[in-house]
Amino acid sequence: MFLALDAGGTSTRAVTLDASGHALGYGRAATGNPTAVGIESAVAAIGHSAQAALAGEVATDPVSCVIAMAGQQTPAFLNRVSARLGSLGVGPVLLQPDLLGIFHSGTHELDGYALVAGTGSVAARIRDGRLERVVGGRGWLLGDEGSGFWIGHHVARAVVAALDNQVPPTALTDLVLAAVGIEAPGSPIDRDRALHQLLTALWARRPVELSAFATLAFQSHADPAARAILLTASRALAQLITAVRMPDQPGPLVVGGSVAVRGMLAAPHDLRGELTRAAAGVQVIPVPDGVVGAAVLALRSAEIHVDAALFDTLRAEVGRVAASAP
Amino acid sequence: MFLALDAGGTSTRAVTLDASGHALGYGRAATGNPTAVGIESAVAAIGHSAQAALAGEVATDPVSCVIAMAGQQTPAFLNRVSARLGSLGVGPVLLQPDLLGIFHSGTHELDGYALVAGTGSVAARIRDGRLERVVGGRGWLLGDEGSGFWIGHHVARAVVAALDNQVPPTALTDLVLAAVGIEAPGSPIDRDRALHQLLTALWARRPVELSAFATLAFQSHADPAARAILLTASRALAQLITAVRMPDQPGPLVVGGSVAVRGMLAAPHDLRGELTRAAAGVQVIPVPDGVVGAAVLALRSAEIHVDAALFDTLRAEVGRVAASAP
Repeated sequence: MFLALDAGGTSTRAVTLDASGHALGYGRAATGNPTAVGIESAVAAIGHSAQAALAGEVATDPVSCVIAMAGQQTPAFLNRVSARLGSLGVGPVLLQPDLLGIFHSGTHELDGYALVAGTGSVAARIRDGRLERVVGGRGWLLGDEGSGFWIGHHVARAVVAALDNQVPPTALTDLVLAAVGIEAPGSPIDRDRALHQLLTALWARRPVELSAFATLAFQSHADPAARAILLTASRALAQLITAVRMPDQPGPLVVGGSVAVRGMLAAPHDLRGELTRAAAGVQVIPVPDGVVGAAVLALRSAEIHVDAALFDTLRAEVGRVAASAP
Repeated sequence: MFLALDAGGTSTRAVTLDASGHALGYGRAATGNPTAVGIESAVAAIGHSAQAALAGEVATDPVSCVIAMAGQQTPAFLNRVSARLGSLGVGPVLLQPDLLGIFHSGTHELDGYALVAGTGSVAARIRDGRLERVVGGRGWLLGDEGSGFWIGHHVARAVVAALDNQVPPTALTDLVLAAVGIEAPGSPIDRDRALHQLLTALWARRPVELSAFATLAFQSHADPAARAILLTASRALAQLITAVRMPDQPGPLVVGGSVAVRGMLAAPHDLRGELTRAAAGVQVIPVPDGVVGAAVLALRSAEIHVDAALFDTLRAEVGRVAASAP
């Protein structure tokens, strides 16, 4: 038996499966990324989702496990997560980059590209099933252009500037104030009150939480301020794709992360013109998460050949158990 | 006797003077802003500069005091600084906004504008010697467009993107690496080493320290990446001026802060085109700091009328004692 996990920045998904690609169970939990929530919470979420995928039973046969996740992980984390999963009869645990989880969730091919834009943003060229080149990421302060944080940060700045009368009013203001639970200003003179409440509320959060505002930009994409932010973000994501593309490698490009999939790919065509141009000639495959890819990596780690037919089975099976999971 | 202090974000300046504008002593110390360094260090710096301006003597006649500084100050700070200065025979202590210190360092007029761009950026319209409208500021995360932090942050991001091969090489890379003490990459393949060292070094600092890189952009203003950053910054500062200007108020515009005075006003004309347009028809007066203005505010708080002649005396006197101070 195999256990495949996708420990993303907002949630963790786990699936158990056999060597033929038949899925046995599925579990969901909160984020399992230690960079986001610390080792304790991450290990707890991974354990919780694994337990659900194992239907609460402790495995008696050997279960090898792949966890797809972002970031460099510490030995301390690997030890703790191995111990937790070991108590469920699962092991050994192999950590894999989230970019490979996303890529292999979209294709059984071994060569192509992946773009992930969620809270962060990163792209990769994959050759022979491995990351050949990774561009972007680097965190909210110094990188992650076009990511959820980047968009949400610019949304917050635009609203502060508008409430400060530096720029014309924007539709984003009421949306951001409502999201933070602040009453919209009833008059121009009431703006100072709203601005001070907003500044106080945002300074009390961790900077990375500004990424929650990214969806507001997509919601109000006709607003000039939102449009300018999204155009720049789409240019930045296009730049990541361009930086990893090579003439000798035709694709496909697997796209993951909520900002890329539910945001950019669903946005009006004129907003993502540069993105479309950067991906011209390449098959674009959006995926909801990286759990199918984690399953592919788990089977391959046992030297099982995942061809197109087995991949299709895997994808259908994961879809089936995910849909019936509570 | 009067004691006037300008407690800036990088240093504190103090001057003692009499009612005729004759300066008696001058002192310098580290930053006296509690937001930057905490109450203890700020009070120590203010006390140190005051002691130097009093030539080490405890005043026997009453000395009233004005401190010009940025930000909202807490009662705890006012109590501590009053106690410290009280031990030198100085009091009462009146706190005034740094924007007024800057404005009154440039003119004896009561109406006009002030723009300060140092680590942060802010502009104000002054009417009848008071702040009528303030635009900008708001801190590095949500505001301060065009400030030293804003420029330094964009410089750091540009270098990270260049080392990551997302964008073409920039002259900023070697300057930033040298400033952080990291060896420049000897080959394209050595870039990853430099990038990781840079990311580690920058994550270990407080974000606001990125403002140290602002001068590097001005140094290499012919570089396309630096130029793009400075053009956007100059547009942002122009926007602050535009937001406070009113047709019925002709100026002057007093400009302070290292980014505005030593950076923008000294940059090639084509870099600051928008800034020049925003200030068209207004007399622009750069000032090195706000200590002359603090002296003006100190005399005015004793109902001494500061006319053009007394202002000129004050400015010359402060210049004289500052030049001969150790």
